[in-house]
Amino acid sequence: MIIKLKQNITSESAAQIAKKINAIHLTENGTQTLVTSSKVKEINGALDGMIAETFTFENDLQLASANYLPHKRSVEIGGVKIGGDTNNMIMIAGPCSVESEEQIEASAQLMKAMGIKALRGGCFKPRTSPYSFQGLGLEGLKLLAKMREKYGLAIVTEVRDATHVDAVIEYTDVIQVGAKAMYDHGILRACGKARKPVLLKRGFGTTLQEFVQAAEFILSGGNNQVILCERGIRTFENQTRFTLDLCGVAFMKEKTNLPVILDPSHAMGYAYGVPDLTRACVAMGIDGLLIEVHPNPKVAKSDAAQQLNHEEFRLLHKSIQPIATAIGRIFV
Amino acid sequence: MIIKLKQNITSESAAQIAKKINAIHLTENGTQTLVTSSKVKEINGALDGMIAETFTFENDLQLASANYLPHKRSVEIGGVKIGGDTNNMIMIAGPCSVESEEQIEASAQLMKAMGIKALRGGCFKPRTSPYSFQGLGLEGLKLLAKMREKYGLAIVTEVRDATHVDAVIEYTDVIQVGAKAMYDHGILRACGKARKPVLLKRGFGTTLQEFVQAAEFILSGGNNQVILCERGIRTFENQTRFTLDLCGVAFMKEKTNLPVILDPSHAMGYAYGVPDLTRACVAMGIDGLLIEVHPNPKVAKSDAAQQLNHEEFRLLHKSIQPIATAIGRIFV
Amino acid sequence: MIIKLKQNITSESAAQIAKKINAIHLTENGTQTLVTSSKVKEINGALDGMIAETFTFENDLQLASANYLPHKRSVEIGGVKIGGDTNNMIMIAGPCSVESEEQIEASAQLMKAMGIKALRGGCFKPRTSPYSFQGLGLEGLKLLAKMREKYGLAIVTEVRDATHVDAVIEYTDVIQVGAKAMYDHGILRACGKARKPVLLKRGFGTTLQEFVQAAEFILSGGNNQVILCERGIRTFENQTRFTLDLCGVAFMKEKTNLPVILDPSHAMGYAYGVPDLTRACVAMGIDGLLIEVHPNPKVAKSDAAQQLNHEEFRLLHKSIQPIATAIGRIFV
Amino acid sequence: MIIKLKQNITSESAAQIAKKINAIHLTENGTQTLVTSSKVKEINGALDGMIAETFTFENDLQLASANYLPHKRSVEIGGVKIGGDTNNMIMIAGPCSVESEEQIEASAQLMKAMGIKALRGGCFKPRTSPYSFQGLGLEGLKLLAKMREKYGLAIVTEVRDATHVDAVIEYTDVIQVGAKAMYDHGILRACGKARKPVLLKRGFGTTLQEFVQAAEFILSGGNNQVILCERGIRTFENQTRFTLDLCGVAFMKEKTNLPVILDPSHAMGYAYGVPDLTRACVAMGIDGLLIEVHPNPKVAKSDAAQQLNHEEFRLLHKSIQPIATAIGRIFV
Repeated sequence: MIIKLKQNITSESAAQIAKKINAIHLTENGTQTLVTSSKVKEINGALDGMIAETFTFENDLQLASANYLPHKRSVEIGGVKIGGDTNNMIMIAGPCSVESEEQIEASAQLMKAMGIKALRGGCFKPRTSPYSFQGLGLEGLKLLAKMREKYGLAIVTEVRDATHVDAVIEYTDVIQVGAKAMYDHGILRACGKARKPVLLKRGFGTTLQEFVQAAEFILSGGNNQVILCERGIRTFENQTRFTLDLCGVAFMKEKTNLPVILDPSHAMGYAYGVPDLTRACVAMGIDGLLIEVHPNPKVAKSDAAQQLNHEEFRLLHKSIQPIATAIGRIFV
Repeated sequence: MIIKLKQNITSESAAQIAKKINAIHLTENGTQTLVTSSKVKEINGALDGMIAETFTFENDLQLASANYLPHKRSVEIGGVKIGGDTNNMIMIAGPCSVESEEQIEASAQLMKAMGIKALRGGCFKPRTSPYSFQGLGLEGLKLLAKMREKYGLAIVTEVRDATHVDAVIEYTDVIQVGAKAMYDHGILRACGKARKPVLLKRGFGTTLQEFVQAAEFILSGGNNQVILCERGIRTFENQTRFTLDLCGVAFMKEKTNLPVILDPSHAMGYAYGVPDLTRACVAMGIDGLLIEVHPNPKVAKSDAAQQLNHEEFRLLHKSIQPIATAIGRIFV
Repeated sequence: MIIKLKQNITSESAAQIAKKINAIHLTENGTQTLVTSSKVKEINGALDGMIAETFTFENDLQLASANYLPHKRSVEIGGVKIGGDTNNMIMIAGPCSVESEEQIEASAQLMKAMGIKALRGGCFKPRTSPYSFQGLGLEGLKLLAKMREKYGLAIVTEVRDATHVDAVIEYTDVIQVGAKAMYDHGILRACGKARKPVLLKRGFGTTLQEFVQAAEFILSGGNNQVILCERGIRTFENQTRFTLDLCGVAFMKEKTNLPVILDPSHAMGYAYGVPDLTRACVAMGIDGLLIEVHPNPKVAKSDAAQQLNHEEFRLLHKSIQPIATAIGRIFV
Repeated sequence: MIIKLKQNITSESAAQIAKKINAIHLTENGTQTLVTSSKVKEINGALDGMIAETFTFENDLQLASANYLPHKRSVEIGGVKIGGDTNNMIMIAGPCSVESEEQIEASAQLMKAMGIKALRGGCFKPRTSPYSFQGLGLEGLKLLAKMREKYGLAIVTEVRDATHVDAVIEYTDVIQVGAKAMYDHGILRACGKARKPVLLKRGFGTTLQEFVQAAEFILSGGNNQVILCERGIRTFENQTRFTLDLCGVAFMKEKTNLPVILDPSHAMGYAYGVPDLTRACVAMGIDGLLIEVHPNPKVAKSDAAQQLNHEEFRLLHKSIQPIATAIGRIFV
């Protein structure tokens, strides 16, 4: 249950009440707001005269619910607003991993030349094998920060586990929470306190309900800049790496108030399918794309098969605008 | 292994050779063709001087493989060619089930008015419960045939099991093999002998490999008019009815030589998501769409939740052309 | 809804009433019984004075429901009763396919020597590739019948599609409906009319609800000798062929009134895991086992990897009795 | 590749070599051991004269592979050895969450009275909703420690994220890594350095390959006391909470050298199925069980539906010994 308190209630009073009724206290659009379990359907007399409005819900999808906010929440990435009252669709692109200054600079130059505003690159790689490349860590974060300064790009990079969440939050512009880390309370709570946008990726074994509830951890922690990112779920089909769940995207658009960004690269796992899938994503009417592109995919230290080369990426990029226009979206 | 024999080899000789080497014999584009298991990688001396060309394959995806035919096979539905050297994308629409003459005529009139060439409607419903509506059977086929005569529409209807496959083949223009029937050898063999296009739906628990191999049954039976239809696979996610596998569509487009038609209605299971999903399908660059639309979805005897009403369908239809144009497709 | 009519109501009257209220009419234990959709929760006045008892249900799992019959239905295979008031667990074993008289006779001799009552062997193989061995067909059925006469074994063989369902019903003692055929209405209806036990295998993409509803087709067709067979479902895991769903077996034991037989061979797909899995199945307290064993698995024409050889099978068989005894089952 | 160095090579030299060839350095049974990516199939001349033995592998399942160690690794829990040359099967039981001193003491007393050696109970609950009970945290750990002192029980409790991994390692006897945390490098690395057994749970969306590779993180970190725990995977079936993957258990037993413990409670999700499933697990020949039991399941603050009450647990416990005996296991 979400309880919006009257404007005359101070933050201190709200915090006290929250404690009393075992609720989470936060401020939404300047209003003192309390959130309890969705099992609570009515509030007893203790709050008489203090309540401006209440919302009840079928399940714990509450702050993220379209039944709570009729419009989509707005998030800003590198000066570009997505969601809210915009029709913007942003491109975030770059290599799977930051591998060297030379490599990430080649990527940054490509973004800059193409007018793309956001550069992605992983520094803490959640590899499944201890014998694979694990990422450059802090050194990688510093390289990304250097690219931001030099090329004016917003930086999107992933937090893998709670041991380095503070470093990632410090260096990045958008905190990406990876598919394998999205249940991590240590990370989700840190994101809740952060004042930067969070790109939350759906786990490949995660239901839509659980996924949006992970976003609730961040929202109820006080950070309302949350973006949902679908990147493929694990199914019985293994000719492709994962199965991009666009039915799920239709659900998120209908039932939540959060912007949605899609990552077709990880879903497909093979470069050959990425362009068609990307265009399908665009036609869904989403808020952004996350595409892996590498100066030389063949020598990439991770996810080599799925990264586009620069030429393939340019061709794809060119084909996106007409589709975006066809459905009334502005491609940034 | 596919063996194309020289032009001077007669059909009778080819049949004899096929028997000798345990191969399937068929005629592809006027050429006597033999197909063995893909485990056969070379052919012994018995065929010396008779072979024009051979193709070997990694697995039993052979006649359907893009490595065999570099271009897509062409199929004609109601005067509209899809695949081949065309860029056509066809709309097939209509109710889940034929329920009455009044209902199917309302659907036929809508198709006619909108310039749509093909009408779908199920007569033998593969319901999972014996206590649900099972379809009108032969009576339904006759109603569809009546609509064809009256409105000049091509008819697409489903065969559920081998007991009525001959009746369906007789009445329909396109033989639809349903998701639950696609392993059925009785049906696949009858389709192989038929001289009508076959719309083969992927089973919801079927791998891409198995799915295309089911198409091989029909192709190797002598019918080269086969269309693959993705309609959603079963995954752990149940907020939506199934999960539309567009990664799989990218695979089919790359690895096979068969036209691909998509059915977003069954995948989503809820009308609210069908328009966005349909647009995503269009942007994939596919050969056709199969959409469920009903004069009054609320009273539909099957799949009520997922059928669009006429107004929703008209709005969706209007939004398709600009996307098709954006990717160079002609929407029919 | 299940309606048991009073004893004075004749079969003819019951049939008339069934027509009037759109119900299925059958005789259960000598009582005229009507079954409607489970959506029907009460019956109007038309049947006043005729009703002995009614049962309502949450969904279309009705005749198969444990809420309808408090005890398990009984089925007889080759003189062995399973289910009902017995604690019997039967072994059904034999090769995947009948390949030759020599091969099936070697299998039959093994069964005979070990005191096993039922021999399995496929004649119509539902292969996914048209270029694989498709089974000996009618010739195979005749070989199985020969083994029955010669060795006194009950025969269990599979129907693949409706084109040969009558032949299978004629020759076999237990009609096995395969995982790929279990939605087939042509087969299910024929089984409903047959007077032989039906071993219904769960499709690998089939929910428990759908699976038990397929049994409802047979039960409501008038054949109450139905056995449920779990043989593995398709999941993301592919180190093993399928995933044996013993949670599902717990569900079937609790919620249905049908005997349950397990097929660990197909689930595992590799002989190395079959013995441990089989012992796990036994400890679940089930009614029977279906195990693939071949005189020489290496040269088997289908499913070579998963079939035990005779020695492995003997060792496994020996280890079963102590577990059966530990849980109070009698192993036949 | 695993490289066992000769006995005369010191740890310091081994560490230097490891750096040079980009390998992980650890001591296995007193031998200096280097592990590289499995892609490395031979080692160049730099190590001439230093190598005692090498092992190559098809994939990064190396230290955990049965091809490396022919016998199972041994782990000690509360004085009970499992794996190794024992046939022991241990019972670990207790409530899902530590809720209060009274509750956990009732559980501890039950274990004590029944001769069970290990008590489980969660303190940091990885709940999917921010509005659910999140566990007692450090206070819970202290209560568990108190039970250990008072009743002489080994404590098994779960680490949820890296922020409290040190606290859990300090208080617990067995570090349980939960299904949602098993990809967490922060946790896996801390476990690698710990000198306590680790019970690693398989993620519900995790392949067997990935799962065993997570164990490789711990093994290659220097801790060889790792236990694999199967607890159900997420499939399309939702009549049960998850699907217990016993085919996967057969794989783990065959292909790895690690003890295996099973958790049927989480897999089933409903108390009614837990006894049968538990007996099936026992018959697989595993090394231990993890069962949820609560003094009063109805009021449990998490997973209420799946916890057995004390009476149900006693009945189950009694039925286990005969099966264990039947397959030659000693139940502790």
